[in-house]
Amino acid sequence: MAHRIFSMPVEQQVISNHGSSPAPRLYLEDLQVGQCYSSGTYVITEDQIKRFAAEFDPQPFHLDNRAAGQTIFRGLAASGWHTAAIAMRLMTSGGMPLADGIIGLGGELSWPKPTRPGDTLQVRSEILEITPSRSKPNQAIVNVRNTMVNQNNEPVYVFQAKIIVFKRPTA
Amino acid sequence: MAHRIFSMPVEQQVISNHGSSPAPRLYLEDLQVGQCYSSGTYVITEDQIKRFAAEFDPQPFHLDNRAAGQTIFRGLAASGWHTAAIAMRLMTSGGMPLADGIIGLGGELSWPKPTRPGDTLQVRSEILEITPSRSKPNQAIVNVRNTMVNQNNEPVYVFQAKIIVFKRPTA
Repeated sequence: MAHRIFSMPVEQQVISNHGSSPAPRLYLEDLQVGQCYSSGTYVITEDQIKRFAAEFDPQPFHLDNRAAGQTIFRGLAASGWHTAAIAMRLMTSGGMPLADGIIGLGGELSWPKPTRPGDTLQVRSEILEITPSRSKPNQAIVNVRNTMVNQNNEPVYVFQAKIIVFKRPTA
Repeated sequence: MAHRIFSMPVEQQVISNHGSSPAPRLYLEDLQVGQCYSSGTYVITEDQIKRFAAEFDPQPFHLDNRAAGQTIFRGLAASGWHTAAIAMRLMTSGGMPLADGIIGLGGELSWPKPTRPGDTLQVRSEILEITPSRSKPNQAIVNVRNTMVNQNNEPVYVFQAKIIVFKRPTA
């Protein structure tokens, strides 16, 4: 299945891992600029929003429906770090099936819209650039734009990340 | 206490909120480029690292000590999103005492070093730039560099953030 998808022209490559099909385990040699990946979906609940916020981001707009209505968010919204964590969960659960894992060095992120209780979230990842390491011949820095959208296809979180990707082991 | 600190020259302003002293509640008028803020501390445990990873970033280097030793991390390391969430916790618990909360639009982040079980983490925030909104006279976009260091003063997480800050209410 993965093999068939990889034989498609780059501009049509959309690789989805929803549910039961086994994820391909990708190495650097498998990646090309323009490839797109699509994750499964994640429904975020009000209880999860409040629980994450209580531990890591205890501000009224993430904790209390009534208080949130009086803020710039005009209603309960998930912590931006909760949305980032969910995007990572979706990517590590098949959205971006790298054989050696998703190892980020950093990147640029934004939250274009609030994430609300009950939203259904999904990540689409596009490979923008592949820069081979000068000092380490078995790895490269790959620039990937990860866009998490809600059920209305509105981006709620965008992370343009630099990740380390390794070649297939030779031994 | 807050007032006394604010009367110091900008380059010497370091505002700490460790423990029991009541945090000042800052509005846009209180902020100046060059001001620095310092949070309390947070000790991250192995159990917390594994619990966060199990929910949001279930990769071997965040979940399993032995497997982590065989990876580029050479030992268990916290998920980068766990470090980001802890930095937010430190900032919202006195590190960056904004009256209307810390509301981020986005920014650029990096993880210069892994965060390890038992590390003691602290965030230092420096105001880099204040850009008044053209359309909304009561707010500005403030560019803040938040650097979380470990007990050896090594940066483990840097987030240069754009946040919305409001003026003191007039009514």
